Amino acid sequence: MHVREFQGMMRRIYYSRDFKRGTEGTYNWLVDEVRELGDALESGNKKELENEFADVIAWLASLANVTNIDLEKTALSKYDKKCPKCGYSPCACAFRTSSKDASAQHP
Amino acid sequence: MHVREFQGMMRRIYYSRDFKRGTEGTYNWLVDEVRELGDALESGNKKELENEFADVIAWLASLANVTNIDLEKTALSKYDKKCPKCGYSPCACAFRTSSKDASAQHP
Repeated sequence: MHVREFQGMMRRIYYSRDFKRGTEGTYNWLVDEVRELGDALESGNKKELENEFADVIAWLASLANVTNIDLEKTALSKYDKKCPKCGYSPCACAFRTSSKDASAQHP
Repeated sequence: MHVREFQGMMRRIYYSRDFKRGTEGTYNWLVDEVRELGDALESGNKKELENEFADVIAWLASLANVTNIDLEKTALSKYDKKCPKCGYSPCACAFRTSSKDASAQHP
């Protein structure tokens, strides 16, 4: 399924309640789901992990819906078959283990 | 682009460094990107917001790659044209504004 179709499906199922909850509430819920994804990573339970990955992408799509962002378009305009920073695939940027010293780019 | 193709593209560009960084490092980077998405929401800058949405879905795909999760399959096995909790589209669950009293479901 296209990213855009997934976002559209989430809109059909959840938009009225996402809109009612608002941007901040929907963002906070996404943060909670990311935390639960971290817990699932620690648990080592594959079923739980899959469940939390599903929830994170679902809430990301919900947040994109309430903020009028086309998730597929925006993802592909930045990540278009190559690293947006170095221009290569595979990425050839200097390796960094954390984003602390990072720009907004991926590597 | 299908969710699965996007994940595959991220694998081609970033897998060797995502693998080297590991699950915990990649998860921590995802958390940082979600925080930056929150900052972008507050800034009201559309360009910055699009950029951060792109980064969050990119890092979610990277984390799925290092943990061997098929993001599209897992998303569609939970969210299949209807709310997984109530079984309806649009969702007809009791409305909640926060996940504090929630199960792992979306509403």
